[in-house]
Amino acid sequence: MNVVITGGLGFIGLALARRLAARDDVETLTLFDAAPPETGLSPPAAAEVVAGDVSDPACVRTLLDREDLVVFHLASIVSAGGERDFDLAVRVNLDGGRNVFEACRATGRVPRLVFASTLAVFGGSGMPETVSDTTRPTPQTTYGATKAACELLINDYTRKGFLDGRTARLPTVVIRPGAPNAAASGFASAVFREPLAGRSYDLPVPLDTRVPIIGVRTAVDCIIRLAELEEGLGDDRVLNLPSLSVTVEEMVASLRRVAEERHLDIGPVGVREDPGVVRIVRTWPRYATAEGALALGLPRDLELDQIVADYLADEF
Amino acid sequence: MNVVITGGLGFIGLALARRLAARDDVETLTLFDAAPPETGLSPPAAAEVVAGDVSDPACVRTLLDREDLVVFHLASIVSAGGERDFDLAVRVNLDGGRNVFEACRATGRVPRLVFASTLAVFGGSGMPETVSDTTRPTPQTTYGATKAACELLINDYTRKGFLDGRTARLPTVVIRPGAPNAAASGFASAVFREPLAGRSYDLPVPLDTRVPIIGVRTAVDCIIRLAELEEGLGDDRVLNLPSLSVTVEEMVASLRRVAEERHLDIGPVGVREDPGVVRIVRTWPRYATAEGALALGLPRDLELDQIVADYLADEF
Repeated sequence: MNVVITGGLGFIGLALARRLAARDDVETLTLFDAAPPETGLSPPAAAEVVAGDVSDPACVRTLLDREDLVVFHLASIVSAGGERDFDLAVRVNLDGGRNVFEACRATGRVPRLVFASTLAVFGGSGMPETVSDTTRPTPQTTYGATKAACELLINDYTRKGFLDGRTARLPTVVIRPGAPNAAASGFASAVFREPLAGRSYDLPVPLDTRVPIIGVRTAVDCIIRLAELEEGLGDDRVLNLPSLSVTVEEMVASLRRVAEERHLDIGPVGVREDPGVVRIVRTWPRYATAEGALALGLPRDLELDQIVADYLADEF
Repeated sequence: MNVVITGGLGFIGLALARRLAARDDVETLTLFDAAPPETGLSPPAAAEVVAGDVSDPACVRTLLDREDLVVFHLASIVSAGGERDFDLAVRVNLDGGRNVFEACRATGRVPRLVFASTLAVFGGSGMPETVSDTTRPTPQTTYGATKAACELLINDYTRKGFLDGRTARLPTVVIRPGAPNAAASGFASAVFREPLAGRSYDLPVPLDTRVPIIGVRTAVDCIIRLAELEEGLGDDRVLNLPSLSVTVEEMVASLRRVAEERHLDIGPVGVREDPGVVRIVRTWPRYATAEGALALGLPRDLELDQIVADYLADEF
């Protein structure tokens, strides 16, 4: 198969690319991105890197004009970035998404498309304590709103036979290496990464903040399994990915536990609240179930300490 | 106030225009539409009619560049029409909606916008027997998908302070005069209108087909009340409108009852199923609640016979 990953030079894109580059059935692997990878991250040697803007229809059309195509559509303006620039978020996330869907349709070969959506489609005053696959999306960020709109379009493009869509709603993916991105959820990575690198870190949210998270290994596993699924998908292609619901306090405790076991010196962790980040994070769900994903056999994380251990194994 | 109704020459647009034309507080009333009204229907004398395409951004921008603006965004490709022409439905419903939202934003004055969405945002294999305000939209038509996407965008434009949106999810509105439009729900009007005009009518769906309906008087009342609401709206601006859930058999019985009371001769009613219409209608919800709308004091229909009586009073 010929694989194209939009947003392929981002954290998840590169983790996915490394896994796919090792597979015999991947003939070509193309990483499409508007920006170069962060310092310290690099694409696998087997991958072709194409620079371009997902909001440019002609560029995306050319990119996806391939036989035996599988698309992973990850390119996105993220939460805090979208709050800073509404028009950019709409252009990249909604228009960009539509360009990808139209380019898939234009191939005439109903390509598989895995779309990275987000649990941030949920939010607001009417949101239940635990969200599920059947909870109504009421996003409180432009990021969430544009992702939810793309979910609807992918289901409709799939229904029409224009593409074969599978939407994965990602929990906060941890532990990101490198510098923080514009996601308001960045603290859930930084709280591990910065102390493990010996730096001090001030959390922008209180210790009792609770978020559903997924380890990057598991997230990549889920995304690949979704692309591989031959059956079990109905008319609704949207799935919450399995998550662990953890508080920031539990993150700090896990960090200390793993560091102590390995005799690692870690930097100090404090709290200095950032009202902008707190405002966004407060709108997100605290617990999320994933009945559909689990029924389809997608993997899940079992404990936070393992995610921290995986990070140490992958990055150090 | 200066009122603009997109789709202002359609059935609901004209009914709304007639009601608004009678109000002292409406300074100008502009009916924007791509098509002339159906034969037999005409706009109120006080209204200005502007011909144009809602998918043309410049045209919509000029249309809405007014002080003290209230917009009723009704323009839409409807269900069966959208199934015939996907691209047209996306262009008019989604791009057209975005043009309206952007033109509201461009005024810089946070205009009120009432958006006519639809209970056809619901559907599919996972839909519950009764849908509510909190049911997740899983549309099975491009019409429903594009309406649901606009609902998300209106909530986000409202959150950003770009406009003051209120979304009314309309049940099937009855009883449409004139010729049928491209809505798959047309039978719910035709089953009254055609026999009352002395013509025979063959239903395209079986007698046990159950649909949530609303009388056009009540629908217009709800839409105007939504525009008038000064408080009670939270971060979620989407409301199911109150509906009566009736079977086609109950429609025929009501027709016969009202006709008999008034000694009206009516044309014969038969059934000749249209698989395309049946397929679409089967995906729609059979029962719908409207907790939010009722809590805000929006009116509801109490019985089907009254809707039939209203039609006779309005049209004959």
